[in-house]
Amino acid sequence: MPATQPARGTRDFLPDDIRRRTYVMNVVRDVYERYGFEPLETPAFENIETLLGQYGDEGGKLIFKILRRGEHEGTGEADLALRYDLTVPLSRVVAQYQHELPRFFKRYQIQPVWRADRPARGRFREFYQCDIDAMGSSSPVVEAEVLAAVTDVLRQLGFSEFSIRLNHRRVLTGLLLRCGIADVAHASALVAIDKYEHIGREGVRSELLQRGVADHAADGLLEALYPSPRDGAAQSIQRDAAGVVAHLRALLAADVPSVEAVDNLATIVALSAGTSAGRHLVVDPSLARGLSYYTGAIMEVAVADLAGSLGGGGRYDNLVGTFLGRAVPACGFSLGLERILVVMAERGMFPDQVRCGSADVMVTLWDAASRADLLSLAGELRASGLKVDVYPEADKLGKQFKYAATRRVPFVAVVGDEERSRGAVTIKNLETGAQQTVARGETAATLLRSLGERRRSDDADSIPGKV
Amino acid sequence: MPATQPARGTRDFLPDDIRRRTYVMNVVRDVYERYGFEPLETPAFENIETLLGQYGDEGGKLIFKILRRGEHEGTGEADLALRYDLTVPLSRVVAQYQHELPRFFKRYQIQPVWRADRPARGRFREFYQCDIDAMGSSSPVVEAEVLAAVTDVLRQLGFSEFSIRLNHRRVLTGLLLRCGIADVAHASALVAIDKYEHIGREGVRSELLQRGVADHAADGLLEALYPSPRDGAAQSIQRDAAGVVAHLRALLAADVPSVEAVDNLATIVALSAGTSAGRHLVVDPSLARGLSYYTGAIMEVAVADLAGSLGGGGRYDNLVGTFLGRAVPACGFSLGLERILVVMAERGMFPDQVRCGSADVMVTLWDAASRADLLSLAGELRASGLKVDVYPEADKLGKQFKYAATRRVPFVAVVGDEERSRGAVTIKNLETGAQQTVARGETAATLLRSLGERRRSDDADSIPGKV
Repeated sequence: MPATQPARGTRDFLPDDIRRRTYVMNVVRDVYERYGFEPLETPAFENIETLLGQYGDEGGKLIFKILRRGEHEGTGEADLALRYDLTVPLSRVVAQYQHELPRFFKRYQIQPVWRADRPARGRFREFYQCDIDAMGSSSPVVEAEVLAAVTDVLRQLGFSEFSIRLNHRRVLTGLLLRCGIADVAHASALVAIDKYEHIGREGVRSELLQRGVADHAADGLLEALYPSPRDGAAQSIQRDAAGVVAHLRALLAADVPSVEAVDNLATIVALSAGTSAGRHLVVDPSLARGLSYYTGAIMEVAVADLAGSLGGGGRYDNLVGTFLGRAVPACGFSLGLERILVVMAERGMFPDQVRCGSADVMVTLWDAASRADLLSLAGELRASGLKVDVYPEADKLGKQFKYAATRRVPFVAVVGDEERSRGAVTIKNLETGAQQTVARGETAATLLRSLGERRRSDDADSIPGKV
Repeated sequence: MPATQPARGTRDFLPDDIRRRTYVMNVVRDVYERYGFEPLETPAFENIETLLGQYGDEGGKLIFKILRRGEHEGTGEADLALRYDLTVPLSRVVAQYQHELPRFFKRYQIQPVWRADRPARGRFREFYQCDIDAMGSSSPVVEAEVLAAVTDVLRQLGFSEFSIRLNHRRVLTGLLLRCGIADVAHASALVAIDKYEHIGREGVRSELLQRGVADHAADGLLEALYPSPRDGAAQSIQRDAAGVVAHLRALLAADVPSVEAVDNLATIVALSAGTSAGRHLVVDPSLARGLSYYTGAIMEVAVADLAGSLGGGGRYDNLVGTFLGRAVPACGFSLGLERILVVMAERGMFPDQVRCGSADVMVTLWDAASRADLLSLAGELRASGLKVDVYPEADKLGKQFKYAATRRVPFVAVVGDEERSRGAVTIKNLETGAQQTVARGETAATLLRSLGERRRSDDADSIPGKV
């Protein structure tokens, strides 16, 4: 017999998994639609030329390739490849439908991507990405809107203590140049800086030296990115966006493009002041973000007591041009959906509704002769909007009740010989054991009322965890 | 520059496409959940052994295969394959999680599948399937519930004139045997019968002869499946389930398994009488259904004036056993989601809600100095549940209005110098041209009221088409 596990690095999502995932995706969708983002979906595979060369050497090795069909199959040639991220397909779409899409195309996209990574705890070969991108404008209003939208998603999911770190690629460039690090060494130095959270100040210092950065340049850079505490006030300066901006403006005053980048950060902070993102924003000159395509502001969400981020993004004004031949300004953010799901599960942040059972009520089956009548009762209850399961076989009532209880179905409906002769239905609450017999025409209304009461008492008992 | 079309046979779904697809999928999900079906999702690819050999020679050729990664890449060896249907992954899941899943596992699954078919009008290499399956019971209650659920989906989508053809694999076998067609020739004869709708009675007859069925056997079979009109009442007999059942019972009285199959059909019809499916059911002994794995009742939806079906299914009690080693009774139905979408678009069956624009209101941008204030206004409106877009750049108002109108955004909010000095907001209805200036704190309430009025007048104007 064939093995029954899913392929390595992939997961089957059973009903309870899907309920949790759907809850989160619905919040994301609702919030992003409130910001005017529209849904987009692209095919699972692309022509292989569309993806090759887009993700660097390391990324390229992780692309799943699909064998060409038909006579070519024997050659091992691949002509298609599985979606690796949502940004390259978006860029293709913007080029392909340039005359149909609006000037300021804002889309959200929630779809799986596939990477042939070595599977590990929390790292999968199939996982969902959840992106927003706003195309067509280089106005800082776009960054402010993206930041507010992401904030609203996280707050609505129950996250309250988080920071959004904000930086600008050109500020980093300015700081590197100011410390005497030449253009050609920037990419390498950014890789080292990106590891600060994992390897600390000394770790970054030695990695910078290993990567050929001179002693004094490394020290200057570290001091610019992470000012040493002088008067015990450094921490609060770090957290005060205006203070950090002023510090950067002073440091970089001699370099016009850097000053423009600092001004851009200052504008984004000012525009965000009256939005939900305002109190979460932290200007952090040490934020580097791995991807090479960013050209302007970059951002990343950090949650207290949680290593790593829940998502990140930034401005990338040149990527679409590789498909279109003319630049299209763009700014996006990718939420770490799988990460968010893990953290919410660990911290008990899901509301009760995602723990619902398979149905509101199960109709028990008495004997073969009454089956048609019970199916008709089930139909009446469903017409009232109730979720109704029917036990498919005549069986001992106790066994049927037990089955419903293990399925977390709160009520069962029983129509025995006596009930049928009286045109009645007995409703049993499996949680309390209480039961009542009502006229058949009253069954749906009685159940809806009981479910409403149950829901209200649940709400009072448990408020989903906030972090 | 790389080509920007999606890969051959696949489609990009732009926002309006997604709104239509989401509408249909939500109806499907809601109805199936009301019947106690629970959501399941499986990975896009499976270990290749899981899929090979499951779909016959023809099907096997259409499986997309994924190249093994790493050192093996050069060999052209494939170790993974893209999902080809939802039934084989379900069978694997039922075997893998047999101790976690309920005894009567009922799941719905709406996910894309991939087939390396030659693309044609309405035939894609990536398309969604939408399946329900109920595992674990051989009771005819299961068939009745599946039939009612499918009926409710179609009716809620606006289909009203459709039949569900019902037959039983063992009835077909009985009819073939009775006509003197030997077991070994049954599969081939069923292929010919399956083409009746396309090639007619004479076409089926000559194909039966070509396939080695004797003259008199072919004539006997055709007469059993499609009785010739004798007294002008044949059509109504065809449509009267009880009549067809009686006819079959008489024809097959000598063969015990056939009689049991006829009894099963009669029970399903009787159980359905009090459900939504009752008036749509047609017992049709000529229904064959292509797939070889069916073992009991088979069913297919036929819409008046529409060639082909909107979906089909049946009982398959042996498939899960190939993964589990013991038989698990099962009955399922697959809705033709892509077909349904095409028919609904052609017949104008979508409600107005799917033609909504990207937002309820667009906040116009006056000048750079007021941007922060306008973003804060947008935040206030969103907090009231409104979908709000913000024009990202200061621009001529007329141009901004025009942009909103082309995006089907019904209202714009304007805060000019005068409005700001008075703490007011001007709301303009882009459809009527009417405008009013309200206190800023009243803006959300005013918009919600206006949107409600607009929706009510839309509802009165247009009722989605019914077929």
